[in-house]
Amino acid sequence: MEATQRVIAILGGTGKEGKGLGYRWAKKGHKVIIGSRELDKALDAATELNQMIGEGVVVGMDNLQAAEEAEIIVLTVPFQAHQFMCESIKQPAKGKLVIDVTVPLVPPKVTKVQMPSAGSAAQEAQEILGMETAVVAAFQNISYEHLMSDGVVNCDVLVTGTGKGNRELVISLVEDAGLIGWDAGPIENSVVVEGMTSILIGLNKKYGVHDAGIKITGINNAR
Amino acid sequence: MEATQRVIAILGGTGKEGKGLGYRWAKKGHKVIIGSRELDKALDAATELNQMIGEGVVVGMDNLQAAEEAEIIVLTVPFQAHQFMCESIKQPAKGKLVIDVTVPLVPPKVTKVQMPSAGSAAQEAQEILGMETAVVAAFQNISYEHLMSDGVVNCDVLVTGTGKGNRELVISLVEDAGLIGWDAGPIENSVVVEGMTSILIGLNKKYGVHDAGIKITGINNAR
Repeated sequence: MEATQRVIAILGGTGKEGKGLGYRWAKKGHKVIIGSRELDKALDAATELNQMIGEGVVVGMDNLQAAEEAEIIVLTVPFQAHQFMCESIKQPAKGKLVIDVTVPLVPPKVTKVQMPSAGSAAQEAQEILGMETAVVAAFQNISYEHLMSDGVVNCDVLVTGTGKGNRELVISLVEDAGLIGWDAGPIENSVVVEGMTSILIGLNKKYGVHDAGIKITGINNAR
Repeated sequence: MEATQRVIAILGGTGKEGKGLGYRWAKKGHKVIIGSRELDKALDAATELNQMIGEGVVVGMDNLQAAEEAEIIVLTVPFQAHQFMCESIKQPAKGKLVIDVTVPLVPPKVTKVQMPSAGSAAQEAQEILGMETAVVAAFQNISYEHLMSDGVVNCDVLVTGTGKGNRELVISLVEDAGLIGWDAGPIENSVVVEGMTSILIGLNKKYGVHDAGIKITGINNAR
């Protein structure tokens, strides 16, 4: 069965997270829009990805226009910009699915779990965007080093968020990116997955590595 | 080098978690005290373990006496009894290390992360016990099915809590139980590990298994 082609906007998508996900989704046949505060940077990133993939399937836009054009909106912005970004896309995001990749790291203690008052970044997004928009959190734990090089990412993706069907859709997008996704439950569980990033950063520092991750065990490897 | 023999009290230790940990530690040469609200049950559990190990190294006591006799106190009580148990051992726990195994599950929605107001069970314990007692959280994610049968537990143990040295001591006890332990940072990070249990319960239900777990990846397997 042919997978459904989606129109996916990746806001703040000029960083390595956004470009890495965009690269993998575009390769899989999705229409990817790289969004940025600065249109020039978005266009440059789109050009870079198209050169890698060899097709004109990635386009660049400013964040707001990208949100308007897409059916699925992915947030890969720094936590400092998270609240503002959610507020600014509230109208164009109505009725759409928002995938929140944000990790609420608070420097300098990035190895200590420090959640916003909403409970997690994903819950903050859901509060701001309102119930006409579904927020699902994913991809917070993976190292983005290998996404652009077709490398194997030895880290599973835990998917939390509003609505089982939405989580299942995001799991299919996780799989389209070449990763293994798991339904990790309702949006209240996002604190676990976002907070895990602080623990993995701590392990990276302690062991002098840069891609500590997690794998789910005990479930048959048919997945 | 001979490992240091510890005197470890396991409060609420007649359940499968407590007995499983007690069995493995006693086999490794530690002096294990099984504590229970009911002395008879504690004595029965101690007898059961001694019959398995073949030595009189496990004793049974009521919870309070067990806490008084031990140098390390392990809490394996249901979350409903957690607050009361912490209050009742406040005096005997002074100056000692408390290992909190409690997972704050709130029925009926045990697959949804629901933390106490302190932020996590471990932080609740630390608040009640005060800073003269160090609280370290561990063992919340493992399935206890295999502990009593010398089986391999395919799940790592993330260790969070007050004081790096205390976490390292607990990691050595994790290893004495035949498991792999990781320093997962300060006590504020306990929400991640405690909450992970709700996610694993959800995966158990979804996939019809009973020992979904997690493994840390990306760090050399010398550990």
